[in-house]
Amino acid sequence: MAEFALHPRLAADTAFVADWDLSRVLLMNDARYPWIVLVPRRAGLGEWHDLADADAAILTREIRRAGSGLKKLTGAGKINTAALGNQVPQLHLHVIARHAGDAAWPGPVWGHGAARPYETRPRDEFISRLRMGL
Amino acid sequence: MAEFALHPRLAADTAFVADWDLSRVLLMNDARYPWIVLVPRRAGLGEWHDLADADAAILTREIRRAGSGLKKLTGAGKINTAALGNQVPQLHLHVIARHAGDAAWPGPVWGHGAARPYETRPRDEFISRLRMGL
Repeated sequence: MAEFALHPRLAADTAFVADWDLSRVLLMNDARYPWIVLVPRRAGLGEWHDLADADAAILTREIRRAGSGLKKLTGAGKINTAALGNQVPQLHLHVIARHAGDAAWPGPVWGHGAARPYETRPRDEFISRLRMGL
Repeated sequence: MAEFALHPRLAADTAFVADWDLSRVLLMNDARYPWIVLVPRRAGLGEWHDLADADAAILTREIRRAGSGLKKLTGAGKINTAALGNQVPQLHLHVIARHAGDAAWPGPVWGHGAARPYETRPRDEFISRLRMGL
């Protein structure tokens, strides 16, 4: 069985936060939005329905954990959750805290302008908060 | 306990397909993409993590059922799944069949140009296929 390896594009765009039971938890390197990416650590997944039933149940728990935690940490008005994967074929879930008036509000964040990379210190501080708060 | 009522904006933009165990299944009235919307028939839900655990498990099954069925029916290369809700606060899940070269490819479908409403007959035929194939 092939081993899980993070897609290079996801690796380039994110920072490591944690490994949960199923998913690698990543922070998207875009300071415009508090934006988490969950990547199930299984090889060869492209679609949600490619997951085994037991893994799908775990992923659902992890999505809810990420969403509720991110909402509490950031005071977000809305959580956006999505599995798109039109450009990166490895199954990954976006969990994004949205605020009225943020850069793309009320539209979706994808394809909206260029990412604004974090400075090192705010990024590391936010990762610490995510590790404790999610 | 308040009764479930479909948000008027969702009602205006979609056609009824079926009621599954948890979700109302709707067809988005945009012939550019095969596009299903699942709406859990519970009052007062805004976020995925607002669902009771048992309902979340059912929703996960229904998302996978919609995604795998839509992929088979349409031969789509990719399924996009998302709960956004920045404009319609009632929890609803988009399940969209994407093809390389479709109107918004490889970007997301939301906010990309104007919907192209179905003609009555192709819409009704597609709804029949969805009822049998999902």
